[in-house]
Amino acid sequence: MIILVLNCGSSSVKYKLFDMSKQEVMAQGGVEKLGLPGSFLKFTLPSGEKVVLEKELPEHNVAIQFILSTLTDNKYGCLKSLNEIDAVGHRVVHGGEKFSSSVRITNEVIGKVVECIDLAPLHNPPNLKGIRAMDAIIPGIPQVAVFDTAFHQTMPDYAYMYGLPYSLYKKYGIRRYGFHGTSHRFVSQRACDVLGVPYEKQRIITAHIGNGGSITAIKDGKSIDTTMGLTPVEGLLMGTRCGDVDAGALSFIMDKEGLNAAGLSDLINKQSGVMGLSSISSDMREIEAAIEDGDKKAILTMNVYNYRIKKYIGAYAAALGGLDLLIFTGGVGENQWSTRTAVCRDMEFMGIKLDEAKNDHMRGQEMIISTPDSKVTVMVVPTDEELTIAKDTLEILSKE
Amino acid sequence: MIILVLNCGSSSVKYKLFDMSKQEVMAQGGVEKLGLPGSFLKFTLPSGEKVVLEKELPEHNVAIQFILSTLTDNKYGCLKSLNEIDAVGHRVVHGGEKFSSSVRITNEVIGKVVECIDLAPLHNPPNLKGIRAMDAIIPGIPQVAVFDTAFHQTMPDYAYMYGLPYSLYKKYGIRRYGFHGTSHRFVSQRACDVLGVPYEKQRIITAHIGNGGSITAIKDGKSIDTTMGLTPVEGLLMGTRCGDVDAGALSFIMDKEGLNAAGLSDLINKQSGVMGLSSISSDMREIEAAIEDGDKKAILTMNVYNYRIKKYIGAYAAALGGLDLLIFTGGVGENQWSTRTAVCRDMEFMGIKLDEAKNDHMRGQEMIISTPDSKVTVMVVPTDEELTIAKDTLEILSKE
Ligand SMILES: Nc1ncnc2c1ncn2[C@@H]1O[C@H](COP(=O)(O)OP(=O)(O)O)[C@@H](O)[C@H]1O
Ligand SMILES: Nc1ncnc2c1ncn2[C@@H]1O[C@H](COP(=O)(O)OP(=O)(O)O)[C@@H](O)[C@H]1O
Repeated sequence: MIILVLNCGSSSVKYKLFDMSKQEVMAQGGVEKLGLPGSFLKFTLPSGEKVVLEKELPEHNVAIQFILSTLTDNKYGCLKSLNEIDAVGHRVVHGGEKFSSSVRITNEVIGKVVECIDLAPLHNPPNLKGIRAMDAIIPGIPQVAVFDTAFHQTMPDYAYMYGLPYSLYKKYGIRRYGFHGTSHRFVSQRACDVLGVPYEKQRIITAHIGNGGSITAIKDGKSIDTTMGLTPVEGLLMGTRCGDVDAGALSFIMDKEGLNAAGLSDLINKQSGVMGLSSISSDMREIEAAIEDGDKKAILTMNVYNYRIKKYIGAYAAALGGLDLLIFTGGVGENQWSTRTAVCRDMEFMGIKLDEAKNDHMRGQEMIISTPDSKVTVMVVPTDEELTIAKDTLEILSKE
Repeated sequence: MIILVLNCGSSSVKYKLFDMSKQEVMAQGGVEKLGLPGSFLKFTLPSGEKVVLEKELPEHNVAIQFILSTLTDNKYGCLKSLNEIDAVGHRVVHGGEKFSSSVRITNEVIGKVVECIDLAPLHNPPNLKGIRAMDAIIPGIPQVAVFDTAFHQTMPDYAYMYGLPYSLYKKYGIRRYGFHGTSHRFVSQRACDVLGVPYEKQRIITAHIGNGGSITAIKDGKSIDTTMGLTPVEGLLMGTRCGDVDAGALSFIMDKEGLNAAGLSDLINKQSGVMGLSSISSDMREIEAAIEDGDKKAILTMNVYNYRIKKYIGAYAAALGGLDLLIFTGGVGENQWSTRTAVCRDMEFMGIKLDEAKNDHMRGQEMIISTPDSKVTVMVVPTDEELTIAKDTLEILSKE
């Protein structure tokens, strides 16, 4: 079974082609600057060599057509014909309250994803474009939608309702949905597999920390709370998003700076977070470098960054009634070991004992980083959202 | 030493007169509907009898003059002359970064409180009116300012900085300040006195839960974090304030509902919280009553209310590196035992074991409510902000 995984953003299309018989990646790459001057397709050959092909790519369907043509290309391709692709798995950002698991895409499903556009106006439309483009290029090909929000649909109402007028929930669906669900699900299941413990009987906290970041509390295999909310702004300090902030501070700033709703949205999404606080960069590697040079704002930013993660681990341990398993993933979670150290420091009261020798300088490996006598097992598990999408696609099709 | 404590709000003036030699309340009451039709003064006589005197009270100085006249009144008074009052202690809401403790009021202090008006435009101006009125009525009387924010000035920068552009902190002082400081300080010190443990060596969480509510983490006698922020909107679910909410949800709502900054401020301050979510009332007693009748939104509201408190206790235990002492205070914290039960349930992993027999139905008493073998001592300590203000006033004047 050969499965193509597509992640269509507003100006990018990422893809990975899997041979599921061997769970192997056959091809991967992506289009960038879609619809903009200088658009190009970049992909990695099996040799590891990177290829960049510049081309005017005004629309998603053109971009996808171009990707597919390289897959069957004499020089770069790994397929003889597009008919070898058995199915397509799509990342879809927002499934609202309509989807609590991955689904085979039908007209009805498309209708529901359209209804969720309001909740993710920048993300769901390109996701839909990808679905329609594939159906036009290979008519009738089986397609599956895997939602960022689906895993979190098990949250109890007291975890997802905001302290806002109930009427706003009824009218617009304003509540916590959460994102990164595919990653939280993958790393938590993977950790249980590796440890040989039953997924349905664990109290797990997963910290997916990358450019965007979220933490999830998982009880008996179900998400019971997560830091992102209606939008991906809430929770941790992120690259350019502010995370948790006093709502009263926002109306204060709007008043002082003469901002409207769009101005506020720009402030909290694009000018805040690691970038806004440090005035250096949104990339944690550059913050680490600035700390080496003794930059005070970089030190402050790192401390805020780590402290928020630590507080959520405490909060979610309380929500779970104690913790069995703590998992770090995402670009920062997998690589930035100093954050793992800072987060786990002085957490013995709740059973966390980090093995500093194992953790220090460890990057990007699947590894247990707690001491043997730590009540809580702490692990790094590199995430693989595309493989999870491919597996979901395979599973749904094989059930039919 | 006789000390008058004044709490001047925009449309109210509350007072308590203390005889500090015996730490006794000599008189107490307050003006309501100040500047509005139907304004009146209400006070309690030593017998417990309540007296209401209606009178047109257009301004703070008129209201204070009226209060003082009843203190020396033949029928209602307890003083022969106003000269018996040795000093006045004022509650002042916002001291910004300028005040980290209570201070004797001088012209310089008044100037700094004026500079903080921007941060508390509804609160600092009436506080200042009270100070000026007293100085006009009893010229030269020693006055002391006790700030809601002062106790929290010990927070480390990583706890008080938001993930917003650093320039907004420089320009407007946008950061977490916290409130209820007088209460958090009083109940935490009181608990240590009662228990005979050193205040400077405890890890304490104080939950001040009333119509407004905040939770504070206190390490070695110093506030290291608190749930309220630049404004009293952040943190817990409150009577009509939303507490924590996704910033992205706010710009979403503004866009949909066509709100400007003032509309947002009204929504998050006055239409949200317990009232907004339940559609019943902002008063927790009415929520409890509605739960008796099986009202689903009341049950949801109570669950959200309790869950937020629980999460912050977990978060702050992580910030403190473990917990020694958990204190409940405020109207709900002292009386609503079901909230204390819900918050402490399944918290044994961090050393909390509630003595349900002691806690159940216990209202308004100073009491240890954890079991003897609980690692964390859990207490109810009724708060007394006015006494704390009077004590601070006494202490500052006796040092001079
Ligand atoms: N080796 C590394 N050391 C420290 N930080 C890293 C490393 N690799 C990636 N990161 C950080 O991870 C972040 C990007 O994470 P990623 O999970 O790729 O983000 P996204 O949310 O966009 O998927 C960046 O801040 C980057 O600096
Ligand atoms: N006996 C009681 N049982 C339950 N709740 C109570 C009781 N007494 C007061 N409360 C609640 O306490 C809240 C008011 O608390 P309080 O500390 O007086 O508020 P404020 O923040 O205005 O000082 C209200 O929600 C009220 O219902």
